[in-house]
Amino acid sequence: MGIGIDLGGTAIKGGIVSESGTVIKEISCKTRVKEGYPAILEDVCEMIKTLYETCEAKKDFVGIGVPGILSEDGACIISCPNLFLKNIPLKKDIEERLGIDVLLVNDATAAGIAESVFGRSQGKKDSMVLTLGTGIGGGLILNNRMITGKHGVASEVGHMIVGENFYNCSCGKNGCLETFSSATGLIRYCERALEKKIPSKLDQLESFDGKIIIDFAKEGDELALAAVERMAKYLGLAISNMNDLVDPGIFVIGGGLSCAGDFLLEKIRKATRSYLTYPNVATPEICLATYKNEAGIIGAANIKKYL
Amino acid sequence: MGIGIDLGGTAIKGGIVSESGTVIKEISCKTRVKEGYPAILEDVCEMIKTLYETCEAKKDFVGIGVPGILSEDGACIISCPNLFLKNIPLKKDIEERLGIDVLLVNDATAAGIAESVFGRSQGKKDSMVLTLGTGIGGGLILNNRMITGKHGVASEVGHMIVGENFYNCSCGKNGCLETFSSATGLIRYCERALEKKIPSKLDQLESFDGKIIIDFAKEGDELALAAVERMAKYLGLAISNMNDLVDPGIFVIGGGLSCAGDFLLEKIRKATRSYLTYPNVATPEICLATYKNEAGIIGAANIKKYL
Repeated sequence: MGIGIDLGGTAIKGGIVSESGTVIKEISCKTRVKEGYPAILEDVCEMIKTLYETCEAKKDFVGIGVPGILSEDGACIISCPNLFLKNIPLKKDIEERLGIDVLLVNDATAAGIAESVFGRSQGKKDSMVLTLGTGIGGGLILNNRMITGKHGVASEVGHMIVGENFYNCSCGKNGCLETFSSATGLIRYCERALEKKIPSKLDQLESFDGKIIIDFAKEGDELALAAVERMAKYLGLAISNMNDLVDPGIFVIGGGLSCAGDFLLEKIRKATRSYLTYPNVATPEICLATYKNEAGIIGAANIKKYL
Repeated sequence: MGIGIDLGGTAIKGGIVSESGTVIKEISCKTRVKEGYPAILEDVCEMIKTLYETCEAKKDFVGIGVPGILSEDGACIISCPNLFLKNIPLKKDIEERLGIDVLLVNDATAAGIAESVFGRSQGKKDSMVLTLGTGIGGGLILNNRMITGKHGVASEVGHMIVGENFYNCSCGKNGCLETFSSATGLIRYCERALEKKIPSKLDQLESFDGKIIIDFAKEGDELALAAVERMAKYLGLAISNMNDLVDPGIFVIGGGLSCAGDFLLEKIRKATRSYLTYPNVATPEICLATYKNEAGIIGAANIKKYL
């Protein structure tokens, strides 16, 4: 039994996770981003207290998934743009208030832990989760330990450079994976094509998101299909490059866009195969994540096994 | 005290390595590549026997560095193009002949271990060695363990795709790091430029290698300088991408081309900085390797600490 908190840009979610990986109680509240850190800290502490009181089993820590960069010792939020937080000693602040041990984890790493402990990469000592959403996150596990790196930025694979793109990434670089293969990348590509009067049913909509583009691609809309093919191409290139460096044996695709299912998965597998260095020796398994919205809570509650 | 063998494409080298990392006895012989595996096996066994007899200290295994891909359990050579070896149970074959425990390791990983145990990355739990020579090898160590991957291909970073190049890599792909940043990449770039009548003093030579190109670059030859700048640019991009995935904190540059010293190092550092995702938070140290020719022996003799 463990308690995990998923501190997101929109909502704070918390849950009690059973020994078999089921979220047996979940509560949530809106993230009061505008009110700043004191409000966020208060809400997180309240949530932990409520969960602690509800959960009768022995608990030795609370895990908190954070959408940002943590310090090497995992005690501070170095940078978390979605929540406008910088250099925040979140672990200490909660521990002092509640007297409970706290462990922080990057949210995509939490997703990697969730898959490794109960999901698609269960039982495998090495694995890599890629979360495809507004951006792209990664959670790398090697030898049953999460890889966070010397400065806490390991697994930040959304900013690996995989080509040249027509717009710069929000990080300031050009050619980052997430400018090709995230929802943002899909939308930007289609918007630009529509401006160029390339025909597509997307033109009939007032606005569209990544999921709509994938749905239109499934229905055969040529522009949407080209966008998804391009997304898969660069993901395949990135997966092949990551495979060369760490050869984890399995890549698990999660995040909002993984709703595209086998339609997207097959394209990613095909693109990856075309870039692999040793397709006969080292083709990784590429599969869909087990967990969606609960990945952060489940992973955070199980971080201690992967330290 | 340990015994390490460096099974190279040109020579087989073996040595006794002291507890402080000094090679106190070294012997070598030419690699009888043309005579095939039986001759190579015989020479390796003879060398191990000689070293065993010479070394009085307790030895519990012999480590052997191999320029190829090993099986996940480290017992077989899956593929070693330089020696024309494929699916060879080298560990078992030597152990049966000599009754001595044998551990195999990729040669670039051995270089990584040598730097980690006694060299530039000593005392650091994470590190990445890049060996720049005819090709490019990598040795990744995370949490004091060598990373070999699910299929033994981890650290094969020479084939990470970092751009588009005017010729295909020997592996069949286009844009591999080693087509830009190895000696082969330097030579091909200069040869093509000379064919296009771009002026350079290299034109006065009958042939040239990577080291000559670097020497000419140091002397201000414009073509040679452009080749080295290009080499550093793509190395910087690759280092930044690797940093995003594993954030090892330190990249150690070894291999034959590292003779270029600070001249090359400064260019690699500058290029890396231009591509880093978080230059203010996670700039890795980039430095020259301590070991050159002895890296394979020293690393192989110390593999057990990094399993």
